[in-house]
Formats: sequence, C-alpha cells, structure tokens
Amino acid sequence: MRILLVNGNTTSAMTETLVATARDAAAPGTEIAAATGAFGAAIVSHRAEEAIAGHAILKAIADHEGAYDGVLIGVSTDPALGAVRALLPVPVVGMTEAALLTACMLGARFGLITFSLASAPGYREAVERYGLASRLAGLRTIDIPLARAYAEREKLTEAIVEVADALIEADGAEVLILAGAAAAGLPAGLQPHVPVPLLDGIVCGVRLTEAMIRLGAPTPSRGSHAPPAANRYVGLDEATARLLRENAESPGRS
Amino acid sequence: MRILLVNGNTTSAMTETLVATARDAAAPGTEIAAATGAFGAAIVSHRAEEAIAGHAILKAIADHEGAYDGVLIGVSTDPALGAVRALLPVPVVGMTEAALLTACMLGARFGLITFSLASAPGYREAVERYGLASRLAGLRTIDIPLARAYAEREKLTEAIVEVADALIEADGAEVLILAGAAAAGLPAGLQPHVPVPLLDGIVCGVRLTEAMIRLGAPTPSRGSHAPPAANRYVGLDEATARLLRENAESPGRS
Amino acid sequence: MRILLVNGNTTSAMTETLVATARDAAAPGTEIAAATGAFGAAIVSHRAEEAIAGHAILKAIADHEGAYDGVLIGVSTDPALGAVRALLPVPVVGMTEAALLTACMLGARFGLITFSLASAPGYREAVERYGLASRLAGLRTIDIPLARAYAEREKLTEAIVEVADALIEADGAEVLILAGAAAAGLPAGLQPHVPVPLLDGIVCGVRLTEAMIRLGAPTPSRGSHAPPAANRYVGLDEATARLLRENAESPGRS
Amino acid sequence: MRILLVNGNTTSAMTETLVATARDAAAPGTEIAAATGAFGAAIVSHRAEEAIAGHAILKAIADHEGAYDGVLIGVSTDPALGAVRALLPVPVVGMTEAALLTACMLGARFGLITFSLASAPGYREAVERYGLASRLAGLRTIDIPLARAYAEREKLTEAIVEVADALIEADGAEVLILAGAAAAGLPAGLQPHVPVPLLDGIVCGVRLTEAMIRLGAPTPSRGSHAPPAANRYVGLDEATARLLRENAESPGRS
Amino acid sequence: MRILLVNGNTTSAMTETLVATARDAAAPGTEIAAATGAFGAAIVSHRAEEAIAGHAILKAIADHEGAYDGVLIGVSTDPALGAVRALLPVPVVGMTEAALLTACMLGARFGLITFSLASAPGYREAVERYGLASRLAGLRTIDIPLARAYAEREKLTEAIVEVADALIEADGAEVLILAGAAAAGLPAGLQPHVPVPLLDGIVCGVRLTEAMIRLGAPTPSRGSHAPPAANRYVGLDEATARLLRENAESPGRS
Amino acid sequence: MRILLVNGNTTSAMTETLVATARDAAAPGTEIAAATGAFGAAIVSHRAEEAIAGHAILKAIADHEGAYDGVLIGVSTDPALGAVRALLPVPVVGMTEAALLTACMLGARFGLITFSLASAPGYREAVERYGLASRLAGLRTIDIPLARAYAEREKLTEAIVEVADALIEADGAEVLILAGAAAAGLPAGLQPHVPVPLLDGIVCGVRLTEAMIRLGAPTPSRGSHAPPAANRYVGLDEATARLLRENAESPGRS
Repeated sequence: MRILLVNGNTTSAMTETLVATARDAAAPGTEIAAATGAFGAAIVSHRAEEAIAGHAILKAIADHEGAYDGVLIGVSTDPALGAVRALLPVPVVGMTEAALLTACMLGARFGLITFSLASAPGYREAVERYGLASRLAGLRTIDIPLARAYAEREKLTEAIVEVADALIEADGAEVLILAGAAAAGLPAGLQPHVPVPLLDGIVCGVRLTEAMIRLGAPTPSRGSHAPPAANRYVGLDEATARLLRENAESPGRS
Repeated sequence: MRILLVNGNTTSAMTETLVATARDAAAPGTEIAAATGAFGAAIVSHRAEEAIAGHAILKAIADHEGAYDGVLIGVSTDPALGAVRALLPVPVVGMTEAALLTACMLGARFGLITFSLASAPGYREAVERYGLASRLAGLRTIDIPLARAYAEREKLTEAIVEVADALIEADGAEVLILAGAAAAGLPAGLQPHVPVPLLDGIVCGVRLTEAMIRLGAPTPSRGSHAPPAANRYVGLDEATARLLRENAESPGRS
Repeated sequence: MRILLVNGNTTSAMTETLVATARDAAAPGTEIAAATGAFGAAIVSHRAEEAIAGHAILKAIADHEGAYDGVLIGVSTDPALGAVRALLPVPVVGMTEAALLTACMLGARFGLITFSLASAPGYREAVERYGLASRLAGLRTIDIPLARAYAEREKLTEAIVEVADALIEADGAEVLILAGAAAAGLPAGLQPHVPVPLLDGIVCGVRLTEAMIRLGAPTPSRGSHAPPAANRYVGLDEATARLLRENAESPGRS
Repeated sequence: MRILLVNGNTTSAMTETLVATARDAAAPGTEIAAATGAFGAAIVSHRAEEAIAGHAILKAIADHEGAYDGVLIGVSTDPALGAVRALLPVPVVGMTEAALLTACMLGARFGLITFSLASAPGYREAVERYGLASRLAGLRTIDIPLARAYAEREKLTEAIVEVADALIEADGAEVLILAGAAAAGLPAGLQPHVPVPLLDGIVCGVRLTEAMIRLGAPTPSRGSHAPPAANRYVGLDEATARLLRENAESPGRS
Repeated sequence: MRILLVNGNTTSAMTETLVATARDAAAPGTEIAAATGAFGAAIVSHRAEEAIAGHAILKAIADHEGAYDGVLIGVSTDPALGAVRALLPVPVVGMTEAALLTACMLGARFGLITFSLASAPGYREAVERYGLASRLAGLRTIDIPLARAYAEREKLTEAIVEVADALIEADGAEVLILAGAAAAGLPAGLQPHVPVPLLDGIVCGVRLTEAMIRLGAPTPSRGSHAPPAANRYVGLDEATARLLRENAESPGRS
Repeated sequence: MRILLVNGNTTSAMTETLVATARDAAAPGTEIAAATGAFGAAIVSHRAEEAIAGHAILKAIADHEGAYDGVLIGVSTDPALGAVRALLPVPVVGMTEAALLTACMLGARFGLITFSLASAPGYREAVERYGLASRLAGLRTIDIPLARAYAEREKLTEAIVEVADALIEADGAEVLILAGAAAAGLPAGLQPHVPVPLLDGIVCGVRLTEAMIRLGAPTPSRGSHAPPAANRYVGLDEATARLLRENAESPGRS
C-alpha cells in the first residue's frame, strides 16, 4: 500500500525528516510518498499560518501525481484534517490525532509536551476537538526554540526529561506525546530516558493510516463527511478545482 | 467607526445581502465596509470548501484598501476566526460566535436551526469550540435548500416555525439562532411567528463588534493570540505576505 | 439610552466608584443611573450575604424611580441575574458574565484573579453556570484584603502582576479578569504591566448592555425567561410586589 | 434528633404536606420541626420568586425558635442551599440535591419529571450545579398544572406513567425523580405503576439529613463554606442580622 | 438492621479494622456483619488485582450465611459495585462512592488523598464514573507506603497535613477524602489537624447504607440494574451460581 | 505476528465466530489464537456476569499455552481491559474500544446500536470511560433478542436499517457501531444497506491490535499501567497466580 504524507509546512527539509521517520515506522510493503505545501510559512507556528496551511495541504494533494491508498497529514494540529477526510475516498489521518488515539490504548491519561507558549493552545484545542479533554493529564511547554534545541541536543534531552517527569509525577500522565511535526523522529532517541511511552505523531500516524487502509471502510453518502454537493468554484488553481469536482457527489459516482 | 465585513463565500450578491443586514443593524455612526472571498466556493457548504475559505478570508482582508476599526467574519461557522483575531491589531468577531454569545445573555439554553445535514456537524463543532456545549438545547435541520426556500417563502416560514416549536417545547431552547450567512436578514421577518428571540448572526455580530471596538482591549504579546514571530513565507501573493509581515512581532511594533 | 447599574452591596461609596467606572466606559449618549442595595452586607463576600443580595437587587430595581433601557448588575458573581433577566422587559447583563463573554472574544482561555479563598469558589461556579468551564485556564487568589490593598497600591500591583504572570505562563491564560465589584476601575491602571488584556467587569458590562439594548430582542413568552404566571405574593414590600405583578403574564401584555 | 424542614414557599398548607411526608419517612426518634417563608410567592415558580425565596429561607431559619440538628430545604431547586450550608454549624441538605444523590446510588442514569416548561430549566441547572449532568438521562415535562392535577388524580397518574415510560425506554433512565415540593408525597402512591424507583425529594432529604447529622462532620474554617468574616449589615431585620453575626468567624468560636 | 460489609482484599486483619470502624460509625441498632475475599491479593493495589477482587466480592456475598438488609463494599475504588447493586434485592453502596456523595453535601469541591501513583488513576476514574469530575478540586498522592506509615504515625500525620494544605489552599478543595480501605479509621484522628472535613469512606458508607435501607426503594424491573435474564452458567462454584440464579428474573419473583 | 483473541463469554461456538471474523480481517501474516472463558455466563449480558467475566478473561490468558504478540478482548464492553493491559508486556485492545477509536477517524460523531435495554447503559459507560462522550451522537436499542434475530435475518436487517436511519438523520451520527461480541461478523453483510460506515468491533480490534504490535511501545514503569508491585496472593488457581507473579515488578525484569 502507499501512504501520501503531506507536510503543510513549506520547508522540504522537514518533509524529508518526516518521510524518513515514516519509512522507519512503516510495515514491510508500505510505501511513503510525500507532498510539501507550496505556499505559506516555512514552519507553521501561528494561527494565521495554520489557516493558510489548510489550503496549502489541499493544493499539495491536488498537485500530487501518482496514486495513494491513504493520506497522513503531517503538521502541528492537523489543519484541514476534516476537510481532506471529507473530500477524499481514501482514509485520512492526522499526526496529532494519531498520537492521541494511540495514547488512549496505552494508559489512563496522556501528557503533551509542546515547544512554545504560542502553539500550546492549539494542541489543547485539538485534544478538545477530538473529544479527549478528559484524558489530558497535562500540557507543558519547553521554552527552547527547536532550532537551537537541535544544536544543543543534550540540553534538549534534559529539558524534555524534566518536563516528562513533572507530567508523570505531578499531573498523573501515563503516556507522553512530543507534539508537532518539528519533533518527528526525536522520541525514539529520548524513549530510554522516560519511564512511560513517549509517542511520535508520525510513527503513530503511519501505523493508524495502515490500519485504516486495511479496514477499507466505505465513503459515507450522508453527513458532513459525504462528498461535496455540486458547487460553483471561482479563482482556484486548476488542480484544486479538479480535486473538488472529481470528488463531488454525482450520478457517475457511487 | 468602521467595521470590515468579510464574506468568505465568493458570491458578491450574498455580500450585498450581508452588508444590507449589517447596515440596518449598525448604530448611528458605524460604517460597514465589505470584502468578498476572491477564490473558493460560491456558497461554502463542505468542509473542504471551508478550509479554502479560511485562506480566502485572510487574502480578502489583505487585499482590502481603506482603514477599519474591527472585523466581522460573515460565513457559516467562522472559518479563520482565530487566525484573523490573532493576526490583526483590531477586534475580530465571527457571526456564529456573536449569535451564540448573544444567546447566552437572553436565556438558559439556545437552539440552532441549520439548513442541511452536511453542515449541521460544523455548527455543533463551533458550539463546542467556543466551549458552550452545555448551553446547546438542540440543533435541528430543515431539509429545504435555501435557494428553493427563497422562492417559496411561505413554506420556509412554516418549516422554520415547526422546527422552532420542537426546539422550544421538546428540547427546552429559550433562544433560537438561524445559522449561516445565507440566512442573514431572515430572522427579522420570522420573529413575529416565534415565541422566543430568533437571532441573526450578522445583526449580533455588528453589535458585538461595535462593543469590542469601543472596549479597546490591547493586543496581547503572549500566547496564541500574540502577533506571529518573524517567519519565512513562500508562494504567497504579495498582499497576504505583507499582511503577515506587517503584523508580526518586531522591535518597531508595540 | 439609559443603563441602570445596580450595586447589590449596601455601600454607596462603592456604587459611586462603579458609576464612575461605568461612565468612563460608556458610549457618547449613554447615561448611567444607579441603585444601591437597601439591605444586606456592606461588601458581599459570603454565600449567605449573596443570597440576601439577590433579593436586595430586585428591591433596588423596584424602588428605582425613572426609566431605563437596560440593567447592569454590579456585584461579585451576578446574584439574581437570571431572576432580573426573566422578570424585566429590558436587557439585563451581569458584570462577571460580561467579563467572561468578552474574554471569549479576545483569546483562547481566560484566567480569573480573585481576592479571597472564600469567594473563589463562587467565581468558579459562575464560570460553570455560564457553561464556560472549558475556557477557564485558571483561577488564582491574592491574599491581600482589598481594603488594605487600596492603601498600599504598589504592593497590590506587584501581587496582581505576579499572579497574572502565573496564569499566563503556567496556566496558559490569554486574557485575564480582575474579579468582583470591589476591583472596578483597577484594571485600567494595571493594564500596562500585564502582557494580555486585563478585563474590568463593569467596563465590559457597560459595553455589552449597550449592545443588547441596541439589539432589541423581544421578551420570550415561553420558557424560564418568560414573565411569571400570575401568583399570590405575601409579606413583600409594595414596590417589589408591584414590580412582580407589572411584569407578570397578562392579557393586557404582549 | 430534630430536623428543621424549611418551606421556601409562603403557603403553610404546603408546609403541612411536606411535614407529613417527612414524618412518614423519618427514622424512629427523628423529629420534624418546620418553618415557612414569611414573604414571597405562594408557590415559587419563577426565577424572580426563587431569588426572593432564598432570602425568605434565611429569615425563616432566623425566626425559628427552638433547637435543631440539621436543616432540610424543601422547595424546588434548593434556593439558598449553599448560603444556609455555609452559614449554619449543622448539616444542611436540599430536597432536589437529596433526590439526585440518592438516585446515584440506585441506577446508572436518572430521569426528572417536572410540571411546567417554565421551571424545567431550573431543574436542569440544579443537576449541572451539583456536577451530575452526565448522569441525567432526560428531563421531561407534564403540562397539567399540579393544582388541577390534584383534582383529577387518575389523569395525573396516567400522565406521569406515560412520561416515566418515555424516560425509561427512550432516554435510558434507570431511576426517576418527581421534581418539586408540590409533588411531595405523590411518588409513594405512583410507585406501583412505574418499573423503576420513583423518588420523592422530601423522603430522600429526610434520609440524607439524618445520615449527615449522625456523621457529624466539623464546620470548615477555610473556603466558601467557612463562617462569614465579620461584616457590616444594614437594613436587615433583627433576627437575620443576629443569625449572620452569631455564625460569623470570631475569636470566641472554633 | 444488618449491613454486610464486604472486604475485597483477602487480608482478614483488614476486615477487622473495617468492621471496627464501621461499628463505631453505625447508628444504635445497626449490626455489621462481614465477609472477606477468599481469593486474590492481600491488599488490592493493581488493576489486575482489582478485576479479580470484583469476582471475589460476588463470591464472598454468595458464601455469606445469614441475612442482611444492605451491603457496603469496602475496598479501594468500589470494584463490582454495579454488579452487586444490579444483582441483589437490597441496597448496595461503595465506600468511595459514599465518601464522594457525602463530600458533595459538605462543600463546593472535594480533594482526594491517595497513597501511591499506581492507584491514583483508579480513584480519578471512579470520580468520573460517578459523574462527579467537575467537583474534583484535586487529587494528590503521598509517597509513604501505608504499611511503613502505620509504624511512623507522626510522619504520616505530617505528610497528610501537608498534602491537605495544598489541596485546600492551591487547589481550592473544601472537603477532603482519605482514599482507600487501608486508610479506614485514620481520618478521625487526623481531623483536628485539618481545617475542613476529612472523610472516611467506611464511615460515610455506613451512614449512606443505613439511609438507603430505610428508604426502601424497590428493585427495578427495567434497565441495567434489573435482575439478570435467565442465563446458562458454567464453571462457577455452587454458591455463586445459586446467587445468580436466585436473583434472576423469574415468574415466581416480583 | 500472533494475536490472542479472548472471548469472555463461555460459549465456544461464539469464540469460533469471533475467530472467523478476526481471521477474515487480519493482515497477511497475522495469526489469530483464541481463548474462551472457563467460567461464567454463556453470553455475558448482566453487570454481575461481566464482573465475573473480568476474572475469567485473566484466567483464560493465564491458561493459554503458546506465545502471542498482542491481545484482543472480545466481549461486550471490554471487561478487564485495563487489568490485562496493565499486566501484560504486550499491547492489549478491547473490541468496543477499537470500534470507538476507529469511528473517531471516520466521521464527526458516532452512533451505537445495541440489542437490549439491559446492556445499553454499559455501552454508554464505556464511551464515557474512554473519554469520548462528546463524540456520541446517540445510542439506540433494537428489541429483537439476537438469538431470534439470527433465525429471522430479514427482520434483523430491517430493524438495524431503521435504527441506523434514525441515528443518522435525527441524531446526526456519521459512523455507526453494531455493539457487542454477539454481533461480530454481521456488519459486513449489512453495510450495503447503510449510507455510512458500519463498524464491527472485532474487525476494528484486529486492525488496531496489529498497529499497536508494530508500534512496539515500551511497558511503563510508573503509574497504573506499570507492573504490579510484589503482593501476596491467596486462593488463586496456579496459572493465574503465576501470571500475576511473572509480570510483577522485579529486579530481574526491565
């Protein structure tokens, strides 16, 4: 099977890290294709940048050539997840959604570790949006910018281990999630220092996308996840308009 | 004061109706300027169309010439509300948000009337996103497409009165909201047929935007509603990129 | 338009501060009339005193001579708010309710600053009563009695800034509310020391009462906010009994 | 032991019914003393009447001569329950609170039967105030005024049995509560017609007040249920002022 | 009346402590009979041990000779409470459930004190299962194993007083619960050191079981608390099988 | 990989159906081993039977010879799921948990279809236990006993389609779950008649257990899902006692 991993950030170096993490995680026989946002912020970190990323994700999918059996959205709090899921006839999973649902199968309540006060509320809102607020033990923020953190790995490890400890001992977290696409690949190396599972959204996302592809649930024809009704589109690039029209309700479809 | 009313749909006839409704509602001295989405769906009605509308709203604001003291987002479930609010130094209100908060000051629990099963979940999610789920008495859907409904006004009135009655008598709603931009202007005419307040998001939105402009709360410098940190943008049209940069954190700003 | 500001405390010096704060906040053309509780505690600060204040507020309104277009209840956690709202044919807003709803339009989650452990639960209950518990980032208490605090302004500022910092950095609050009528007028002076909006219930209350007056929603004839059914009253002073009877359901009314 | 049953309605005939129901329910050795509201509505049924009843309950307790070991508040949605509980050094229980907590020990979720659309929201708010919203299966309203209902007992029985059936079969209620003081005494006769426990707030209230008296928990000295700090009272009748002062924090108390 | 106190731990010394605590708490005329788990852990402290305790409790009841009017389950987070309640025709109460419901009648929000990080989540889940999450101010854990704690009483008192203080001053708890069967009997001695009520689940449990016995609610014939439908059982010891069959729905029962 | 499917019912014919359904669903290379409860009810359908099933599941695992990489619990509302998960060093998933988490990745809110009023509350409690109450659109019950239903397949199909329709059109469900082990295998045949995905807990369970096995999260050493502390066990059969001891914390383990 082939999973299309969509990076809503416009930095292709990050796409490469996401893809590498995804390939390590994938089952034998799972291929990872990738698409990167063509417009917007280098690293999405503000609400306005995330709104733009939502559109960029749709366009990246529209522009992607080649088939895929499922989509994994790989950026922060899963922008446009509902939009893509409701549009495409294949399974669609978000990296933060995947980490949260996986955490539910590993312990009582989970803790989130984020990397800036500006992005923390978005993660809390994602937890609430997925209806999982009662399983959130705590959300704590580390104030080292990830960029610098990469340069000073030891300090980052220390900082994460300290925050992890507070989440476990004071807040009662039984599973931890290192939030955000920029943290992809980090949990594996940190796991030995943390006494509970430390999840990576991309790794969880690959696992759950594979599971959903194999499940093969049908596309609904009722509700907000049914294909769009025929509509009139203006001002859209050709690929996006075609993506919308191809997936719209129609006599020819079913 | 001047309010910029942003229609995230790309139909300018709808913008005109929204503006007319807003002007009727505005206090003496309040001017209503308007902007319409330049790309996307004629009438936003699917999750994918709403994701695109989020970007279109930002671009419509970026393209708008002339000053304004506050922004009212006028489309369905307030796409990009957090994005615009977190970006601009002026108050920003969403039409559905405004209707919900106004309802809170008029009765115990409110009821929502929507016009398709496909859009209903989005309204419920908006109620939850604003943290008001415990004040939702019920959400009921009328299955007459609004387009046809306009042609057969009497039938529409009958259908709304019937649904309103069920929301009040069976669900315990004490205030009602006719959801969506497409319903702007309708509540005034229907009110005499309904025994509790029937709210129009645009009317409530104008009132609350005026109130927020007069309040003059400062722009936060911490958290997810603080200006974006300096970032690198690619592939954006010039106006949107400028809007992001102008409102970013900077030594020159404060 | 004229707003009747009702102080449920029996201290008229406090009424004067509330009125001064309200007048500063009011739009041109808005007049502020005032009424003070005739019986009960000098400064309401215990549950039993608040129960009495509920009645005192109704009586203060009954005793008030002169017309008004809306009512703003100005004491702690809005005692009798539902009672007054359900009784009068004009808009009624509570100062804490107003601060909370305003906060919802300014950031993701809000923090409350209260001035005693004895009153803190009442504010938390108000947040829950308004259905906004999921938007409460935290509630923290300063243990300086406000009376002494007024004498030592610098210490108060320091204490508030410290608590504000904890609410923002540790709890994730994006807007703050200085709770209670006794704090009216303080936020304006403190705002420059706090990096997010710091709200004053009276200021927010004036803004939202003005907005609700302009909105002009009709009085419901169904539900718990409809006028009282004819009832038999005993032992009430004449003004209160008349207020109840005048606003009761009747053939002559509609 | 002696329980003071306080009727917040001003109708002494109702007090007699409440007392008779309470005496039937009481354990051997439990005496029931009674107090009736001296001012306010004959039968509390509107939010404004309930606000006044809160004060009337405090005054009725203040006016009561003779000792008691606990207090049962016997009117609708337990007005002033927190106030009385926080003031007196003896256990205080509300009739609706008692019915709800008892229901929690009898089944998974409970259903409420109320007698007017105007009072229903108050009961729902009580459930939420006690933090029990997730155990509410449903709340349904019978539209026969209780006054007429008493005259036509058979019809009332039919109506209640019908509503009970809907709460059980459609809403999933496993215990039922006949809400309100006016319904005191009715459940016993109706129980044989209903396949799950049908609770009477006064009966449950007597049981739980007895239990709390025997428990003998100490009065807290911290928080919102600690005695009031010394305060200045104006305009209160002598008995109420004395009640407040006697129960205030003081060096002589502990 | 006679209450059967069931200890789901297999340590009979603990049963003796529970019984002694229960007898101290019981009203004159209440007898306490006891049953101890015949299989499982000496002191239940892990989820797997609790699952086994659920069965052991049913078997202990099945094996018990002699009549009883109500059952009090006395172990940690009330394993098998729903099972026993749904099976027996007499009232059944859990010790943690009883403490939580009693706390609701004593203050606004309660705090829980637990004795290991491993058991804390179970108590939080019990609070949620009873639908009382919004009344939980905080749950804090003391890291002294109770066994050692008994040897060093002074240290235990200090530790509990410190945790109690944090729950009251920082978390806003107004009532405290010392969680778990192993703590039965401790609160009475500690109460003088704590400024709010400190509850003992066994003491509260005896009080509420007495209240429920006197209430005499009928056994439901609908829902999940109705007797089991006739079923085929295999591999069960004779007493348990008989208990199930005796309490099953049958023509002879009513 | 090998999944151990544990049927908590004692009917081995049902185990065969579960295994057949699981094998159809499994990925190539996934083997399904099975274990059946050795004691308890033929088909678990009452709370007391479920409490016993919890123990029976642990014993079935203890008695199972042969290795496995993960466990899928296949009976009603996942009894003992936490117990088994916290005990074993391999992933453990419950069939109802799996269906609910899968539903979260397919639509906004889900609906549950159950087969008796007696079992419905247990499913609702499972949804709440997993923290997913806000995603439950509705739970509706069909009153055909499954046994008879199997004989009259056409009627069953009609009944399910009718209930599905109500869940979708009136309650707003976007995904449906046919609840319970007894329904395993049915959804595949019914799917063509239902316009949204209709989930089978066993099928979802196999998918998610596979995903969790591949994920390979480590066993936590802190919290309620860490191995049991050394304890003393009495009265247990040898296999269960060994299972507990083997998985307990120990110097030799890590």
